[in-house]
Amino acid sequence: MRKPKIVLLGAGYAGMMTTKRLMQQLSIEEAEIILVNKHNYHYQTTWLHEVAAGTIDQNQSRIMISDVIDPLRVTLVEETVEKINPDQKKVTLQNGELDYDYLVVGLGFEKATFGIPGMAEHALSIQSFDKSRYIREHIEYQFSRYRNGEKDKEGLLTFVVGGSGFTGIEFVGELAEKLPQLCKEYDVDLSEVRIVNIEAAPTILPGFDEALVTYARRSLEDRGVEFKIGTMIKECTKDSVIVGDDNEEIKAETIVWTGGVQANAVLGESGFELTKGKVNVDGTLRAPGYEDVFILGDCAWVMNQETGRPYPPTAQIAIQEADICAENIKALMKDEPLKEFVFDNKGTVASLGGRHAMGTIFDGKKLYGLSAKMMKHVIDDRYLFMLGGPRLVLKKGKFRPF
Amino acid sequence: MRKPKIVLLGAGYAGMMTTKRLMQQLSIEEAEIILVNKHNYHYQTTWLHEVAAGTIDQNQSRIMISDVIDPLRVTLVEETVEKINPDQKKVTLQNGELDYDYLVVGLGFEKATFGIPGMAEHALSIQSFDKSRYIREHIEYQFSRYRNGEKDKEGLLTFVVGGSGFTGIEFVGELAEKLPQLCKEYDVDLSEVRIVNIEAAPTILPGFDEALVTYARRSLEDRGVEFKIGTMIKECTKDSVIVGDDNEEIKAETIVWTGGVQANAVLGESGFELTKGKVNVDGTLRAPGYEDVFILGDCAWVMNQETGRPYPPTAQIAIQEADICAENIKALMKDEPLKEFVFDNKGTVASLGGRHAMGTIFDGKKLYGLSAKMMKHVIDDRYLFMLGGPRLVLKKGKFRPF
Repeated sequence: MRKPKIVLLGAGYAGMMTTKRLMQQLSIEEAEIILVNKHNYHYQTTWLHEVAAGTIDQNQSRIMISDVIDPLRVTLVEETVEKINPDQKKVTLQNGELDYDYLVVGLGFEKATFGIPGMAEHALSIQSFDKSRYIREHIEYQFSRYRNGEKDKEGLLTFVVGGSGFTGIEFVGELAEKLPQLCKEYDVDLSEVRIVNIEAAPTILPGFDEALVTYARRSLEDRGVEFKIGTMIKECTKDSVIVGDDNEEIKAETIVWTGGVQANAVLGESGFELTKGKVNVDGTLRAPGYEDVFILGDCAWVMNQETGRPYPPTAQIAIQEADICAENIKALMKDEPLKEFVFDNKGTVASLGGRHAMGTIFDGKKLYGLSAKMMKHVIDDRYLFMLGGPRLVLKKGKFRPF
Repeated sequence: MRKPKIVLLGAGYAGMMTTKRLMQQLSIEEAEIILVNKHNYHYQTTWLHEVAAGTIDQNQSRIMISDVIDPLRVTLVEETVEKINPDQKKVTLQNGELDYDYLVVGLGFEKATFGIPGMAEHALSIQSFDKSRYIREHIEYQFSRYRNGEKDKEGLLTFVVGGSGFTGIEFVGELAEKLPQLCKEYDVDLSEVRIVNIEAAPTILPGFDEALVTYARRSLEDRGVEFKIGTMIKECTKDSVIVGDDNEEIKAETIVWTGGVQANAVLGESGFELTKGKVNVDGTLRAPGYEDVFILGDCAWVMNQETGRPYPPTAQIAIQEADICAENIKALMKDEPLKEFVFDNKGTVASLGGRHAMGTIFDGKKLYGLSAKMMKHVIDDRYLFMLGGPRLVLKKGKFRPF
């Protein structure tokens, strides 16, 4: 009898943790496991704002897949997914094709620019490891250009962040820490530098408790961040943004867009039925009509039965989905009943740069400042522990004893 | 009786060492000493190729002037010199004016592009601390652009160095060390990267012993450097150079010109008589016709009486000139006879990146490889010792016990 073939697309939080769980729960005789990913490394998407600001060493945020996934158990295929053919149980890759018995789709998100003119062309995005370190380099390059005699150019040291959601605010926090350091390194007066955060919604961090929002805003304003809230970005050019009802032009050579994400376009191109760009999965995390296709993470529209609204696209949810997905694949193989996904909210902490942070944990308890920051590190390290045990925590963790 | 006022223009090797010697040899009652410099720091011009390649920490190459020059003894004026009026004994600064009794001009060099079209606009140069760290940033930026999806652009990772003189070859050597590191950091295959060194003269390192030249070239070629010797650069564009009799176009987004330097333009604009852009000083290092104006370093045309040719513009010569200049100013003040400058050649060592180097010492003995590299460090540290004693060697030296 042929071994069933499990193919996982994407080594993000969902794909990596599902692979890990399958490796733990299935023996080598029970299934063939294939992980398809563009690179031979996994990166921590929730740390990319730090890579982009240059506040952590870039390599701390990425993990070689072979460090946590046994290559004798799982075949890594370094490839780009072009299309899924769920009716034929095949995946088209840039340079090949794969068939599968069970498919796990964890292809993550893309930048969504809502048709704002110039945004797709001119704005940077904290979207992948490569794009994030490009932002880091771009920021330093601006400082060196300033010192290289281009200082009269307006906007050279103005950094605009579009969007005040989780990523936008976390990135602004890192900039507020990093830019004064760059000023020192490049002999630039801090007053030459502007950080402007622009958000169309009436508040930053929608969905967060009001006290936390107020704390975050004050913390960032204290460090020089300018907010333009309730302000639409109308257009983005090579060296400026046009904002608000009066079409104010802000000269800026660095515009980072964090204002919108959408699921990977492969889903739509593969013919899956979409809800706001995502696949509206059933309670067992399978695509409607396909018993053998699981859709996880930012590609999945998962309803919260309690609130009647979908869960937000977070790492925490993706990781929890991975557990259920692995168990359900095993159940399918053994013809056992499948489990329903239930989210266990462990809280959310937003880093605001340096020793600053805020958030809620478990029962909704609020945390501020250093204790929130410590909790953020605990959350980060917990994931590393699940993925690669104590060795990975020591190697890539935020608290490291040596 | 009014104290004589000694004004020194430029805190390069010549200006710094003269200031240091004057401070040591004259008491606070004997003279007022004023040092004029664009920045509050001195930098090691002979280390700038390392700053530009990113092979040393940029700050190791610069020294705060206040760390080695006592601010109670010497007044530092952070200003840009616009013109010298030797007949009125005045110096015009960007924002002011200074008069002097004795003047020391050590304003260094500028890029000379010999009218090659596009060179002044598009080529970078290893000319100052700021321009050198801009090159460092620019190089890293190219790698991040490549990883950010621009990889199909030709010339993105081609690094052209114009000129195979001392600086050009030393810089090429550093690139040969640094670029493989950047490839590793940015997940780029080394075969994507080109280093091309272009020289119009029939050989690299003119003036060096043939065996040393052969060694240097082989060492660099072994590490992947391409040489185009006896090849003129005809034109330089935003993203290419046109070279040779057949007008070959080499696509390159990084062009660093080391092929020519000339003395600071202030000299000509101040009415000094020039020989190839420099002031042909007498044996006591004074400008013809002005008893109280000393011209040192790259601004001075100093004849080697033995060979009948001028000395090359090196740090070693500038530092030795400083000693004579300080003594001669003291002699002038005391109405004593002045000394003639005699160059004591201690040899020359060229670094070729990493553990590679070659050169001659003292009696013309040739050194290769690691022993040459060690000697290079000794030379570098010796200057630091003269300038700031053992404390400065520990702080900024190349050999550091801790």
